[in-house]
Amino acid sequence: MFMPRRIQHCRVCGQRTEYRIPADDNRERAVCTNCGEIHYENPLNVVGTVPVWGEQVLLCKRAIEPRRGLWTLPAGFMELGETTAEGALRETVEEAGARIELQGLYTVLNVVRAGQVHLFYRARMLDTHLDPGEETLEARLFHEHDLPWDEIAFRTVRQTLEHFFADRRAGRFDLHTGDIG
Amino acid sequence: MFMPRRIQHCRVCGQRTEYRIPADDNRERAVCTNCGEIHYENPLNVVGTVPVWGEQVLLCKRAIEPRRGLWTLPAGFMELGETTAEGALRETVEEAGARIELQGLYTVLNVVRAGQVHLFYRARMLDTHLDPGEETLEARLFHEHDLPWDEIAFRTVRQTLEHFFADRRAGRFDLHTGDIG
Repeated sequence: MFMPRRIQHCRVCGQRTEYRIPADDNRERAVCTNCGEIHYENPLNVVGTVPVWGEQVLLCKRAIEPRRGLWTLPAGFMELGETTAEGALRETVEEAGARIELQGLYTVLNVVRAGQVHLFYRARMLDTHLDPGEETLEARLFHEHDLPWDEIAFRTVRQTLEHFFADRRAGRFDLHTGDIG
Repeated sequence: MFMPRRIQHCRVCGQRTEYRIPADDNRERAVCTNCGEIHYENPLNVVGTVPVWGEQVLLCKRAIEPRRGLWTLPAGFMELGETTAEGALRETVEEAGARIELQGLYTVLNVVRAGQVHLFYRARMLDTHLDPGEETLEARLFHEHDLPWDEIAFRTVRQTLEHFFADRRAGRFDLHTGDIG
């Protein structure tokens, strides 16, 4: 089971924590040995988009690790103060500089080993202007037959793209949920 | 904007943090003044179910704060090591002792002010045996006309129930997404 044990000191008082099961709980948490503060560690959301221009889909070549040099859909960690949709839109602007209109929530994919849930929205590009940010080496539109399938950065991105092209052939886009083993 | 600033000490070395914008970032994080560790704070997922037995829906009367004494669908924070669906199932067992079979992901509701995303699955109860846990005063099946609408604990629960009964009348259950203001 995913259990990082990264919290060695208490966020409130700075003293050492120990991992134990608190009263009224059933799993180990980092508990402060001084003030008793309990530190919970939970999965994080990664939010992104499938930006579409006509028959083409926008991908970004990663300028940062992990998977530097591989292609991804624009996506990143959801931040406090925003909705999943707002986060997906923000990441698309930050990574590709694309102007988009969000459509529906399209995939919700669990990545248990990473402690993450990836949520992708379909999005309509409003024009082809792109302005990649510092996390992106290159942003480019791809037709399905040109897509760099061997250079996709993440399995959730690959699955989302596979669903997208299959659904487009079928003429109907439904929500897809799934788990990455 | 939601910005809790709860991290006063570094989880790695225990020294004081300060909130500032790290290099290559665009928002304030708790950064350790000693070792430079950056502490990210992100929204959390709450996962739950709409357990259904025939015409009835299962609700739990909360034994704990917040909203002690009010009724909720079984739900709680998603944990590391599980998928959204596994977490929803676990919470239903822990809070109601119900045996269920999960159906589709049904609502994805952003609660920005709480820094949470609530995800509810539809679920079919396999029998009417219930065994409420310590967080639940009472678990009970309700027909729509009996539902304690004035005593619902959370707005995401209310919205999910409203969608459920409307969709049941319409004969079709689709995913619903939304934001709680």
